[in-house]
Amino acid sequence: MEKLTSRQENYSERYNQLVKQAWLAENSPVRWCMVIKPLGFAIWENMKSVLDLMFKKTWHSNAYFPLLIPKSFLSREAKHVDGFAKECAVVTHHRLKASADGKSVEVDPDAKLDEELIIRPTSETIIWETYKNWIHSYRDLPLLINQRANVVRREMRTRAFLRTTEFLRQEGHTAHASKWEAQEESLKMHDVYNDFMTNFLAISPVLWEKSESEKFAGAESTYTLEAMMQDNKALQIGTSHFLGQTFSKAFDVKFTNQDNKQDYVRSSSWWVSTRMMWGLIMSHSDDQGLILPPAIAPVHITFVPIFKTQEDLDAIMKYIQTSIDTISQQSLTIKSKYLWDYKIPVILKIDDDPNKWPGWKFNDIELQGCPLRVVVGKRDIESGTCEFWQRDTKEKISITIEELADKIVPTLETMQSRLLTNNIKRMEEHTYIADSRDEFKKKIKQGFVLAHRDGTEETEAKIKEETNATIRCIPFDAKKESGTCIYSGKKSSQRVLFALAY
Amino acid sequence: MEKLTSRQENYSERYNQLVKQAWLAENSPVRWCMVIKPLGFAIWENMKSVLDLMFKKTWHSNAYFPLLIPKSFLSREAKHVDGFAKECAVVTHHRLKASADGKSVEVDPDAKLDEELIIRPTSETIIWETYKNWIHSYRDLPLLINQRANVVRREMRTRAFLRTTEFLRQEGHTAHASKWEAQEESLKMHDVYNDFMTNFLAISPVLWEKSESEKFAGAESTYTLEAMMQDNKALQIGTSHFLGQTFSKAFDVKFTNQDNKQDYVRSSSWWVSTRMMWGLIMSHSDDQGLILPPAIAPVHITFVPIFKTQEDLDAIMKYIQTSIDTISQQSLTIKSKYLWDYKIPVILKIDDDPNKWPGWKFNDIELQGCPLRVVVGKRDIESGTCEFWQRDTKEKISITIEELADKIVPTLETMQSRLLTNNIKRMEEHTYIADSRDEFKKKIKQGFVLAHRDGTEETEAKIKEETNATIRCIPFDAKKESGTCIYSGKKSSQRVLFALAY
Repeated sequence: MEKLTSRQENYSERYNQLVKQAWLAENSPVRWCMVIKPLGFAIWENMKSVLDLMFKKTWHSNAYFPLLIPKSFLSREAKHVDGFAKECAVVTHHRLKASADGKSVEVDPDAKLDEELIIRPTSETIIWETYKNWIHSYRDLPLLINQRANVVRREMRTRAFLRTTEFLRQEGHTAHASKWEAQEESLKMHDVYNDFMTNFLAISPVLWEKSESEKFAGAESTYTLEAMMQDNKALQIGTSHFLGQTFSKAFDVKFTNQDNKQDYVRSSSWWVSTRMMWGLIMSHSDDQGLILPPAIAPVHITFVPIFKTQEDLDAIMKYIQTSIDTISQQSLTIKSKYLWDYKIPVILKIDDDPNKWPGWKFNDIELQGCPLRVVVGKRDIESGTCEFWQRDTKEKISITIEELADKIVPTLETMQSRLLTNNIKRMEEHTYIADSRDEFKKKIKQGFVLAHRDGTEETEAKIKEETNATIRCIPFDAKKESGTCIYSGKKSSQRVLFALAY
Repeated sequence: MEKLTSRQENYSERYNQLVKQAWLAENSPVRWCMVIKPLGFAIWENMKSVLDLMFKKTWHSNAYFPLLIPKSFLSREAKHVDGFAKECAVVTHHRLKASADGKSVEVDPDAKLDEELIIRPTSETIIWETYKNWIHSYRDLPLLINQRANVVRREMRTRAFLRTTEFLRQEGHTAHASKWEAQEESLKMHDVYNDFMTNFLAISPVLWEKSESEKFAGAESTYTLEAMMQDNKALQIGTSHFLGQTFSKAFDVKFTNQDNKQDYVRSSSWWVSTRMMWGLIMSHSDDQGLILPPAIAPVHITFVPIFKTQEDLDAIMKYIQTSIDTISQQSLTIKSKYLWDYKIPVILKIDDDPNKWPGWKFNDIELQGCPLRVVVGKRDIESGTCEFWQRDTKEKISITIEELADKIVPTLETMQSRLLTNNIKRMEEHTYIADSRDEFKKKIKQGFVLAHRDGTEETEAKIKEETNATIRCIPFDAKKESGTCIYSGKKSSQRVLFALAY
């Protein structure tokens, strides 16, 4: 196993190594696409199932819509086309045939489709075409549906989890009778995401609205969650959108309201994707590898028995049996706004593979971010002890075997809080205020910057051109204060959050 | 709400109505594809999560491989190409552009891909191309991986769940050091599927091997599960395959064995798809709608309060509160070989929508197959009773409100067994023995037929041509008995199972 490059040496290269070596993901033999490896997929599934439960607690149902979208659907909503129809995968034929020499296959020219099909870059068009037949009266509203889907947007410069041609995500698409309800929904889902990021991923994002130029194509308002990565750049880790009547008008989705009049429905949409995996890795890892927040870890403790013979192993297994039985019945509790006291069963693994050296096993545990490690050798049996190690602090102590079981849940819960506290602290330490152009240009390289701007798209474009920084959001808790734009000197009523972003 | 066509009147039409009206699925605006509606998807998710747990208990991990497969990969394994490469979706371009008039989008001719990409019709090629880099030594084996994926095989005559261009499935792909282990794995997964079908879906399939001509392309042995539908036709509801070295040779996947020699790995694969949904509907339903086995039902009991005013509703809610609190804490237990005593929390729903008549609600409950219904009106409060109704038997009784909570779990567990017993009984009653060609031709229209055949592909083809029947499997429990082929009169050592099939 090669050693990981340190973060200081080459942050980007070290990310690629970590993702591959820790069994998270790798580039696939198919250009621009990734393979999600077992540990990566297990973490993703844990994320999915917590989010799914949050969606169900807020009355959403899951459904599934087609992968393929007829080309003509994409012409319906002009802004939407501009945003998504450019780089995508176009299906033109429906058959292959054997080549003349019988050694390969080729596209059958007789099998051209009447209308090309596009692999969904996002699903608004097919979903709204379907909703049209589901919605007739106010009795059919609200319609609260979520879909988990693979989507394809062709990307040339790919990076596992951050930017790949195919990626996985969930997308919620809801329909409502009133503007108020649709807006309320987009804010609620923004809050659900925040609950999830904060309490499960131990990532505390900056919240609230996108500026005009950074909104989702077709949205009246876009609410974002912007997380600070370890290199102080921002990642948009989730978004929700209040769409007004954009899609209901484009797809002619009307309903009879309580006054017996026809009206277009209002809508919201919201999504998170495998980008969250990238955010997790870039928030919680050190030079030795990944650090998994216990709330999302597929395995919480790995036991490593140190043995040479089967007899030794049997003796160790007998010695730890009571602890294992007790720990297997335990759960940690995660406090969450939408899931209250959410219980997660403690998952333990015993790595007794006789073909691997303990040193390899320790290395894998560290690399893959398992929160706790317990090592037991023959001498521990004599002294009634075991070695207890925590991934994030790397604190290693010897404790009695009787103490072990009672230590697990409190240690995991403390680790979960500590990771969040550290995340908040890092962000606070790297968030600056800039009141001049020069100060802005200096500070923007070091983290998030709160600054006044005049609110025009021209100024925004100018700042981006000069510094690469964009307005990440107009923060929820930004207090009203008058000031002057750092670029134009014009009036401003509020600071906004700037950052370099992924 | 239109009335369902009865099964006798038009079995096929009634299936289409049921699937759509019960909120299971519908044809999508995209030709040949389906939309899976919320109830259908909730059932599918319950199926997935039970199977996933069974896969985990048998030491499998989930991973995810790309949707798109380069055309050249499909040429590698000749038999496989013949089986799958014909009707599929071919991606030839990667960009759309606005048309000259700006009103629509068209394929950008400058964006032709160097090599066409195929939407996976199945994933062997991409998975084996990836495994090549994961497998080096016997220490890396066995590799036990499952993937959940959407796959595309172009179908012209589509039917929701049974046959659609896009469908959902899981596909397991495993690699092993020895032939014995790979064969063992394919049989174990066959057994896992049988456990799931029998104990969760209440469907008892006929088990065992496919004949030479019905095997999966590239397999040495295919093990199938053949379920009898209500029209006495067979559905192949799941399969597992022992693949020998077919794919490891095609993709050059070698490993260093314990004797330090190079060898090709052996492999297995196994899958079930959204076809299972079709099998469930075609096994458990009556003229009023779906009947959901409690082990897989998203909701177990629907409470319908009968009220005119909010005051009435409040009184009813207060009256049933204790029962609801108790029932919400209950679980039913499903006996399973792989999951032992598997606990399923009882899910209840209260349908207090003031905009719908009770009659509509009763109709929906029946149509959507909710196992139990409890109706409570104002008069029940006076008499201390409630109305308790079971979906499958339609038995309706009045019981005291105190009795209610204790009745739920035993009734659900009894219903689960009864559905299985009925399924087995139906299959036994419609399985025949035929010893002559005439008898065969008569009986094959009425159900499954056990008959002697000479084992040649010619005879199999002849029987299919004349009767449409195929050999569904060589059953596990078919006793060895000598006989003569019903068509050729040649010798046979064993009866095989024939049926008309979907």
